[in-house]
Amino acid sequence: MTQYFKDIEKIKFEGTDSDNPLAFHHYNAEEVILGKTMAEHLRFGACYWHNFCWDGADVFGQGTFNRPWLQAGDAMTRAKEKADVAFEFFSKLGVPYYSFHDIDVAPEGNSIKEYVNNFAEMTDVLEQKQEETGMKLLWGTANAFSNARYAAGASTNPNPEVFAYAATQVCNAMNATKRLGGSNYVLWGGREGYETLLNTDLRQEREQMGRFMQMVVEHKHKIGFKGTLLIEPKPQEPTKHQYDYDTATVYGFLKQFGLEDEIKVNIEVNHATLAGHSFQHEIATAISLGLFGSIDANRGDAQNGWDTDQFPIDVPELTMVMCDILKAGGFKTGGFLFDTKLRRQSSDPSDLFIGHIGGMDHLALALKKGAQMLEKNFLSEAVANRYKGWSGDLGKGITSGDFTLESLANHTVTNNLSPRHQSGKQELLENQVNRVLFG
Amino acid sequence: MTQYFKDIEKIKFEGTDSDNPLAFHHYNAEEVILGKTMAEHLRFGACYWHNFCWDGADVFGQGTFNRPWLQAGDAMTRAKEKADVAFEFFSKLGVPYYSFHDIDVAPEGNSIKEYVNNFAEMTDVLEQKQEETGMKLLWGTANAFSNARYAAGASTNPNPEVFAYAATQVCNAMNATKRLGGSNYVLWGGREGYETLLNTDLRQEREQMGRFMQMVVEHKHKIGFKGTLLIEPKPQEPTKHQYDYDTATVYGFLKQFGLEDEIKVNIEVNHATLAGHSFQHEIATAISLGLFGSIDANRGDAQNGWDTDQFPIDVPELTMVMCDILKAGGFKTGGFLFDTKLRRQSSDPSDLFIGHIGGMDHLALALKKGAQMLEKNFLSEAVANRYKGWSGDLGKGITSGDFTLESLANHTVTNNLSPRHQSGKQELLENQVNRVLFG
Amino acid sequence: MTQYFKDIEKIKFEGTDSDNPLAFHHYNAEEVILGKTMAEHLRFGACYWHNFCWDGADVFGQGTFNRPWLQAGDAMTRAKEKADVAFEFFSKLGVPYYSFHDIDVAPEGNSIKEYVNNFAEMTDVLEQKQEETGMKLLWGTANAFSNARYAAGASTNPNPEVFAYAATQVCNAMNATKRLGGSNYVLWGGREGYETLLNTDLRQEREQMGRFMQMVVEHKHKIGFKGTLLIEPKPQEPTKHQYDYDTATVYGFLKQFGLEDEIKVNIEVNHATLAGHSFQHEIATAISLGLFGSIDANRGDAQNGWDTDQFPIDVPELTMVMCDILKAGGFKTGGFLFDTKLRRQSSDPSDLFIGHIGGMDHLALALKKGAQMLEKNFLSEAVANRYKGWSGDLGKGITSGDFTLESLANHTVTNNLSPRHQSGKQELLENQVNRVLFG
Amino acid sequence: MTQYFKDIEKIKFEGTDSDNPLAFHHYNAEEVILGKTMAEHLRFGACYWHNFCWDGADVFGQGTFNRPWLQAGDAMTRAKEKADVAFEFFSKLGVPYYSFHDIDVAPEGNSIKEYVNNFAEMTDVLEQKQEETGMKLLWGTANAFSNARYAAGASTNPNPEVFAYAATQVCNAMNATKRLGGSNYVLWGGREGYETLLNTDLRQEREQMGRFMQMVVEHKHKIGFKGTLLIEPKPQEPTKHQYDYDTATVYGFLKQFGLEDEIKVNIEVNHATLAGHSFQHEIATAISLGLFGSIDANRGDAQNGWDTDQFPIDVPELTMVMCDILKAGGFKTGGFLFDTKLRRQSSDPSDLFIGHIGGMDHLALALKKGAQMLEKNFLSEAVANRYKGWSGDLGKGITSGDFTLESLANHTVTNNLSPRHQSGKQELLENQVNRVLFG
Ligand SMILES: [Co+2]
Ligand SMILES: [Co+2]
Ligand SMILES: [Co+2]
Ligand SMILES: [Co+2]
Ligand SMILES: [Co+2]
Ligand SMILES: [Co+2]
Ligand SMILES: [Co+2]
Ligand SMILES: [Co+2]
Repeated sequence: MTQYFKDIEKIKFEGTDSDNPLAFHHYNAEEVILGKTMAEHLRFGACYWHNFCWDGADVFGQGTFNRPWLQAGDAMTRAKEKADVAFEFFSKLGVPYYSFHDIDVAPEGNSIKEYVNNFAEMTDVLEQKQEETGMKLLWGTANAFSNARYAAGASTNPNPEVFAYAATQVCNAMNATKRLGGSNYVLWGGREGYETLLNTDLRQEREQMGRFMQMVVEHKHKIGFKGTLLIEPKPQEPTKHQYDYDTATVYGFLKQFGLEDEIKVNIEVNHATLAGHSFQHEIATAISLGLFGSIDANRGDAQNGWDTDQFPIDVPELTMVMCDILKAGGFKTGGFLFDTKLRRQSSDPSDLFIGHIGGMDHLALALKKGAQMLEKNFLSEAVANRYKGWSGDLGKGITSGDFTLESLANHTVTNNLSPRHQSGKQELLENQVNRVLFG
Repeated sequence: MTQYFKDIEKIKFEGTDSDNPLAFHHYNAEEVILGKTMAEHLRFGACYWHNFCWDGADVFGQGTFNRPWLQAGDAMTRAKEKADVAFEFFSKLGVPYYSFHDIDVAPEGNSIKEYVNNFAEMTDVLEQKQEETGMKLLWGTANAFSNARYAAGASTNPNPEVFAYAATQVCNAMNATKRLGGSNYVLWGGREGYETLLNTDLRQEREQMGRFMQMVVEHKHKIGFKGTLLIEPKPQEPTKHQYDYDTATVYGFLKQFGLEDEIKVNIEVNHATLAGHSFQHEIATAISLGLFGSIDANRGDAQNGWDTDQFPIDVPELTMVMCDILKAGGFKTGGFLFDTKLRRQSSDPSDLFIGHIGGMDHLALALKKGAQMLEKNFLSEAVANRYKGWSGDLGKGITSGDFTLESLANHTVTNNLSPRHQSGKQELLENQVNRVLFG
Repeated sequence: MTQYFKDIEKIKFEGTDSDNPLAFHHYNAEEVILGKTMAEHLRFGACYWHNFCWDGADVFGQGTFNRPWLQAGDAMTRAKEKADVAFEFFSKLGVPYYSFHDIDVAPEGNSIKEYVNNFAEMTDVLEQKQEETGMKLLWGTANAFSNARYAAGASTNPNPEVFAYAATQVCNAMNATKRLGGSNYVLWGGREGYETLLNTDLRQEREQMGRFMQMVVEHKHKIGFKGTLLIEPKPQEPTKHQYDYDTATVYGFLKQFGLEDEIKVNIEVNHATLAGHSFQHEIATAISLGLFGSIDANRGDAQNGWDTDQFPIDVPELTMVMCDILKAGGFKTGGFLFDTKLRRQSSDPSDLFIGHIGGMDHLALALKKGAQMLEKNFLSEAVANRYKGWSGDLGKGITSGDFTLESLANHTVTNNLSPRHQSGKQELLENQVNRVLFG
Repeated sequence: MTQYFKDIEKIKFEGTDSDNPLAFHHYNAEEVILGKTMAEHLRFGACYWHNFCWDGADVFGQGTFNRPWLQAGDAMTRAKEKADVAFEFFSKLGVPYYSFHDIDVAPEGNSIKEYVNNFAEMTDVLEQKQEETGMKLLWGTANAFSNARYAAGASTNPNPEVFAYAATQVCNAMNATKRLGGSNYVLWGGREGYETLLNTDLRQEREQMGRFMQMVVEHKHKIGFKGTLLIEPKPQEPTKHQYDYDTATVYGFLKQFGLEDEIKVNIEVNHATLAGHSFQHEIATAISLGLFGSIDANRGDAQNGWDTDQFPIDVPELTMVMCDILKAGGFKTGGFLFDTKLRRQSSDPSDLFIGHIGGMDHLALALKKGAQMLEKNFLSEAVANRYKGWSGDLGKGITSGDFTLESLANHTVTNNLSPRHQSGKQELLENQVNRVLFG
């Protein structure tokens, strides 16, 4: 056991009567909802990234967290200390999954060879940690955006050597993810975008990114990785504009390169809202396009225009999303990953637990409420009733292709059709939803 | 000549020395730039819609314009008065093109039959007006969003009879557009979206819209319409979310329904910015995806979150767009359409001319500046130089598919690649651009 | 009883077990919370404006509601029909209060004299309606923004005759409000702002508005109106920029003209969010500045940049606001006014009831939850504990003025002060709040 | 001469014919415009902060700039190297002014005593540098936001010891600014705001900030500092909400604490736009309230929601601002300070010059165009004409207080006033402005 979390015990479910802030009040891993345990539904994961590689610095200020493993020292020694504290945290928290970027877990070194060696050595460490703790890997990924070489992008870099460097990291990270039994492999194009159109060839960069993704898909099949490949859309930040702006944009990209059956999306709440959409919009869009993969459950701030990555607290929003996911059959290989950042002011070691406990409890609540919503069935009924005309003769005739524009126009005139608007009942549905949420 | 514009003469080019606000200072229709006249490059059009069908009302206030042809009276008589004043305006302004929605030009009547008859009669009127004035039609379209029946959408309506009604309008509007020699036919899905996900089936509505567009494409070929079909993306307003959000979203939609070679986009400046993009972004994206069609040259206000549809005044922005369009070979069937709204306070009849004159002059200036930018060629050189590595062995090897992810990783490690970031020179390019713009 | 609402009975409280969408499930007017009835706490009002003067039109489409009293006909007859249906609605809904603009209730006529006469006659009608139904007036106001004469503002108009016209309306509306026993008089400066700085003299317009408000205050005292004067801040829409942007801006304006003890704010949820603030921010700011007056409880849409004026559904947000209001001693003369708009698609007569019932139930829930939050007291304790240093010697020394900058610097250096950041516990507080909200 | 800038010569004015990117094309320091030299009008300054204390890191990536003086080493030695390179840059660039935060120039050390000593020693160095180079100080300031101790604010910190620490820094920075002949002293409240209302006492924090500012004003007078005190408004970032949100908000704050004659504003372009305003709005508002002080000339990106601090390139916008400043009599003690950030990809040493040269040239152009605009006088004439009614009897009667609300209403009815809207001529003015800008 590390010194850092020595005062924290394994987090337990204590129910709604407990006032212990270091206990679960709703997340009861083994509780069964609609035929599956909460743990099976929610597939929670915590991340290496913001929890163990970030010291609380922001653009205007230095770190506030004093994480001992981020102090100066021998890089591999520190990486192992970090692994110790990370797995202790994951285990005490009781999430079944974790996630990492390659250079979260291993020092990137001063050359590609050092990188390969460091990462290989740390993959052994992670494998052993997984065995000791029972932790599983939700997804691995490669960080191809933090090093200065990636300032102008990775696969979309104007220099093909940078593409090659990124490919090397992704190849190693995919291999490590396979070896560690990862359920998914994620690609987030942090700098796959542009700062200014003045120096950018959009078509060229799109072709580069298309070829990169094809190589990734081919490699997946070659090594027999059974997990899912995921693209994580984000509209901007750090770049002015990022190519995988949102789910609908990713869909067009995948269609162009014939990848729509190979890659799904990892939707982050805050990336949805930065793109001008609601979180539910992105989830519903992904489901409707057959692209739904996994979720980074970190939200933004409604008044701030950057990625705040806060813990999810909006139970009504989470409930609607849970409803949609349940209706769509739940996660396959995905899960709810906390790619969350503590507030920079939340500098106690316990805050790391408290943030995650809140996120897990709120999503567990949303699961319970979402299941109730489904059981009550009024939303599905309202939708079915609203569109029922499409099961009638005219509706079927249109969708089956029986009508041309002209024959449909003739039909309309001949029958003097004069359809009237029917109330959409939005306020009624909102009230009904809130009655499930709040009694 | 109508009473309304009796004090306004035909607008003439008087050059930069003239202080006449009712003259062109830059737009000289016959002046040749890069081998084509300004008129051929710019293909200006003015619209029926905001100019002749809107009385200056907004959500908080009544009309301020006192347009005589919008007063009460016999609908067909008023429609003919409106045509008189509209064509007088178009002719005096000296735009070669105009555009209309079906019910801009003809009363929609109280039944589909009345609509068909009114519209047929007014199409005759328009045809005669075109002959008399030499005006040409840039595009026609159908208004399938203003009538109460379309409150829940047209092709995406939950009621297939509304789909049928919209199909009838579009069929008639396409036929009229063909007959009037229109260069394009536009589809703007004003209410093809949702107000709340609670009552919406995204997949169903997308299928409806896909079938609708296929019917439109089939009808185009059947009637032998040679113009271009255009979708006008808009992210929201009047709906909370519209399905043709932006160019990248439309691309995915077209790919899904196999329509990417049949339909292009009509990009409106203000719709670009409402979607969180720059105008140039949408143009550059459309060009890079092969979707560039036409432009609605009305801008928004940087601080307001709705469609203000103001006349274009941002010469630097317009210049960059013009540069991109010139590089891409210019408009084919499209043009710059002023789908613009006067400010509600601009209540003089002359304001309608002044707004358009400004828009035309600013775009003419942008054309001249954009041509200079191309001739100086520094942007193309900077881009070519920046990506030159992709013409080398490694770059070609990657794009040609010679490398797998693994073989590229091996290449990288074996050669100990260690690429370094090169300055993107953004500030330098910005300064160089401004030197062309401002001397 | 009118034909329009003939199918609707008076709305009753039926509790959480009822599934009747036309009943209250939480709002139980006589239920006592923290020593006052719900009705006394919440002081609900419904408005004439969006409910009875709007037919469902938006910028892109005609009305969808078919309100019989908005059809053509004799203006005074229609105004009386409107009053009948409005008071039937208010009464059946069971809100104790209503609100109006002068020209919501009376036709503005074709001259200022007609206006005065029509409004006087309709004030008699309202007085009688109030007597018959027991309804009370939460606030009156004058509409000095819809008529074309106000296109460039009312008190800030470049033409002093428009100022005078507005003054006449406000004078009449204040007198009517007094006569009808109104609790408040509201000023919303719909067009008190600018469309472009090019034609605007900011200092001149501010002086005009300052004098106008002083005249209003003087008139209040002269006629002995005992209610509260309220300014309703809004940042933009319909104007590009409105002078009463937000609460902090209004505070500066009031201080400049010596009005900070005479005028308070009427905060609208949607206006807060359009100004880039959270609703709670505006409420907390108003309370901290001593300006809190009343609330328009209509929210916006997080993704749309205009005033959607939807019914409040966000129980967590409303709860925090209720907490702040309870802590501050509750409403004095203000209340929760539904200045709400039905969705344009919500075209059933019952939707008008359903929307308001939802709003009332959600605010009643928020009241119950907010009271629980106060009783649990953890937020107040956390705040008191966080700032406790300011009750110590150093803190008191600073606030009492004992220290100069220099003597404090000397104190700091001499004592080698080295304060450390303490965790802000944001996630902990968020979790605790959600436990009150959701159990 | 340092190694870093050894390849760069002093920047010279070469006029519009030169293609040298390292020369001025418009900024000719000694050229006289409206009776003053460009240098006197523009009062350019460059900053220590982003130029010499930032290595190109952002939230998602490490530094790209490789500034030698930011490498590890003895802190005071590095600080002196930094001063060498900074003053070489300032001098070669030819800006007359510079600016600094205390800890930009001196290491903050491990205690308040070390801070005081280091800063005193470096103030000597700066004094000597100023003498050697002729550079002058536009403003000094204290960084009371980067150190972890300030995570919850400086003057608004819940811990009064943090207030005391900040006071010590500000006291020392004011004294140094006075000694170095600074023209202004700036206060930017980086973290004077809140992350969450849950743990915040708005009234308490406002009182703390009020007392702090009073102490600053008192200290100014005590030490006889003749420069101007400036608050730099910013709405958010790094905090969720900052108390000095915008100029109008600062005005209210100053009025509350009786400081409106003692403190002015330093307006940053990007902070204006983050607050939902145009840059010109903030300038015009500050002028109209008598608060205009100085300008940080760094702009944002229209599509990104954070402070990008880019070099100014928008000549039209800058021209309008210059117009307003010229009309108001120009800067008194303020100037145009480049608080700008290079793009992170702009990693060449010359980019630092190129960015500033562009900013200076664009502002010089704006000065020339703005002076032309004033000379043509059409804007002033249009405004004077538009408000001319306020010089008539009615207008004067209103502003002089002759009318009460009631007497004005009587006047209106008696005279049957029926004012009509006059066109605001926005499009006309926009066209006229563009003709000055573009010919
Ligand atoms: Co993420
Ligand atoms: Co994120
Ligand atoms: Co358009
Ligand atoms: Co538009
Ligand atoms: Co309101
Ligand atoms: Co509103
Ligand atoms: Co600044
Ligand atoms: Co800034």
